[in-house]
Amino acid sequence: MDGSHFLQIPGPTNVPHRILRAIAQPTIDHRGRPFGEMGREIRLGLQHVFGTQSDVIIYPGSGTGAWEAALVNTLSPGDRVLMVETGHFASLWSEMARRLGLKAELISTDWRSGADAKAVAEALNADRSKSIKAVCIVHNETSTGCRSDISAIRKAIDETQHPALLFVDTISSLASSPYFHDAWGVDVSVGCSQKGLMLPPGLSFNAVSAKALAASKSSRLPKSYWSWQAMLETAGSGHFPYTPSTNLLFGLREALVMLRERGLQQVWDRHALHARATRAAVSAWGLDLVCQDEKALSHSLTAVMMPQGHSADAFRTFIEDRFNMSLGNGLGRYKDRVFRIGHLGDFNDLMLAGTLSGIEMALALAGVPHKSGGVQAALEVLKTSGRETGAGAKENALLDA
Amino acid sequence: MDGSHFLQIPGPTNVPHRILRAIAQPTIDHRGRPFGEMGREIRLGLQHVFGTQSDVIIYPGSGTGAWEAALVNTLSPGDRVLMVETGHFASLWSEMARRLGLKAELISTDWRSGADAKAVAEALNADRSKSIKAVCIVHNETSTGCRSDISAIRKAIDETQHPALLFVDTISSLASSPYFHDAWGVDVSVGCSQKGLMLPPGLSFNAVSAKALAASKSSRLPKSYWSWQAMLETAGSGHFPYTPSTNLLFGLREALVMLRERGLQQVWDRHALHARATRAAVSAWGLDLVCQDEKALSHSLTAVMMPQGHSADAFRTFIEDRFNMSLGNGLGRYKDRVFRIGHLGDFNDLMLAGTLSGIEMALALAGVPHKSGGVQAALEVLKTSGRETGAGAKENALLDA
Repeated sequence: MDGSHFLQIPGPTNVPHRILRAIAQPTIDHRGRPFGEMGREIRLGLQHVFGTQSDVIIYPGSGTGAWEAALVNTLSPGDRVLMVETGHFASLWSEMARRLGLKAELISTDWRSGADAKAVAEALNADRSKSIKAVCIVHNETSTGCRSDISAIRKAIDETQHPALLFVDTISSLASSPYFHDAWGVDVSVGCSQKGLMLPPGLSFNAVSAKALAASKSSRLPKSYWSWQAMLETAGSGHFPYTPSTNLLFGLREALVMLRERGLQQVWDRHALHARATRAAVSAWGLDLVCQDEKALSHSLTAVMMPQGHSADAFRTFIEDRFNMSLGNGLGRYKDRVFRIGHLGDFNDLMLAGTLSGIEMALALAGVPHKSGGVQAALEVLKTSGRETGAGAKENALLDA
Repeated sequence: MDGSHFLQIPGPTNVPHRILRAIAQPTIDHRGRPFGEMGREIRLGLQHVFGTQSDVIIYPGSGTGAWEAALVNTLSPGDRVLMVETGHFASLWSEMARRLGLKAELISTDWRSGADAKAVAEALNADRSKSIKAVCIVHNETSTGCRSDISAIRKAIDETQHPALLFVDTISSLASSPYFHDAWGVDVSVGCSQKGLMLPPGLSFNAVSAKALAASKSSRLPKSYWSWQAMLETAGSGHFPYTPSTNLLFGLREALVMLRERGLQQVWDRHALHARATRAAVSAWGLDLVCQDEKALSHSLTAVMMPQGHSADAFRTFIEDRFNMSLGNGLGRYKDRVFRIGHLGDFNDLMLAGTLSGIEMALALAGVPHKSGGVQAALEVLKTSGRETGAGAKENALLDA
């Protein structure tokens, strides 16, 4: 294929050359001093990105593993957990909880909005015996493009005075949307490498509050690989209790430097802008967003309903063959009915213009009912975004430094 | 530091440039067609390396995770497992089994030999109720440089007619020493990426026999991330049930091509030769090997006892500072008493000559009692190895292709 692939699934995201080069460095001794220095530097950087003073544990494993880690470190067989089924990933997390021997109770949604803080509070108020041990929320539901208000959920939990822990999946929001582990009173934040952190998949994270750590002391689910204890014992030295994923950590160190150079606020603002421009395009095309709640619109991805009678998967395959671009597929109840546009990670205005141009041309070529003008509408948003002139060049200079 | 680092720990091993370049390719959509093709190609290559027609499951995780996968997929709470404590890693595996709620029974050794097939048979014969569910053996004990005879252990188990499963850790023997999952009747082989497979850490493997698969149907240990079931359901398509470690899989595909180009027999022969040359050096220095059993000498690494009154860790630090080389440290009961020379993975005669030269110079400079002449003794072995002239050049041409 000519030119660069457009990897516009909502993660893994496009990995910057600078990070790919970092990953391609020769592997080093994970018990040696240079590794320890790197490990300590990375932990500090991760604390900044998670918005926490607490420990951030790093696993060689994907995000699914960090979900498991959150559960097995804090809970015991038969414990009740309250989850909100905001979409496919929340649903997978609840299935995992059941497989691990927990009682997962699901608050259902229409998969077109975020988690409802009031519904969470009602479920906790109804639990007079305080037997619900944790509330699990997916911050940014990657299958629907709906983002939940974690701060409001925290407030609602506090008002019930229920002692349940709060676990938040920040897999597709971390380093894309504002996220504050400490300020929002999250007990375990679950993250991974291949989204806003701009890395390939293979690393995942648990940020752990003091309350979660206390709960881990009496947790009885079996655990070894995911156990926080040994991880925390070695963390101060920058080392790991078993062999870490050294080369991905080279990449993570570089990603954290890049995020620091840009500043998290700029990164969040850029994601919000690209989400807004994408929605302007979808609206001009006359297509429906999956997310129907204005306040819950994701900054990381936009999920679009395919017009009735048209296959979203056939459309995605057409785009892949014709324009060398991958879009995200519909998941769960949206299988073949939705396509998802990822606009997170290492991304800029012109990559977005290319992405939306591919979709608009494909809509016409594949005979999907729509109005043209989506790209133009997006460019209007980008042009008038009030971004300082020269910001792009400045970022590029840093990127290639 | 000038020049290349000598990474002579017994894994992670020196990663060839060809694999580092493969890993640095842009990440692709793990649900797309090119990924599926890669996944299917990798599975075939892994079956060849494990010597099996059975499925080889690939985890985003390190070897420790694949240990856990072997246990949680086949066993139930309170099950008895028989392990042979050949060294530090066998001991860690048994601790993991206990943390997971299993009854791990350890046959002890002096940490200077392999597992005794007769002792395994005796323990199984004594188990009249057949309550031992699995025998766990570390094929090549990375902490001692002793290799166990898996074929003999299989035969001994068969003679007892005990139904226990056989789990083998081939972490530091795979693609270094001959290994035959099917021919040896292994039920679960546990492997990982950063040793003979020449990759960075971050991938691990379970090769699974039909008997192990049958056992998994009634296993009751909780599992989700490590569960074979979903892995096997998606394996035929080359895809994964959750996000795989895409870029390390790029490297694995390349590593499998390299191993096929060279041929496993040549790879095994080279490892045996380098082990023999290393022992010639150690013997000439007048130092003791940890491994005292002629038939159990490892092809992957050589563990050397530090003379009394000298710190092995101080010696390793001296070598690191002066010669830019990492050696393996003493583990468990050998802490500070042993250093380990890794000669596995992507390695050749001159890298070994450099490695041994560093050790010989450091022995002199650090005032460690020894005789000189170790390097010379190793060169005698390498010179007269009967390797065809031109083999090195031929391999190099393939390496840089």
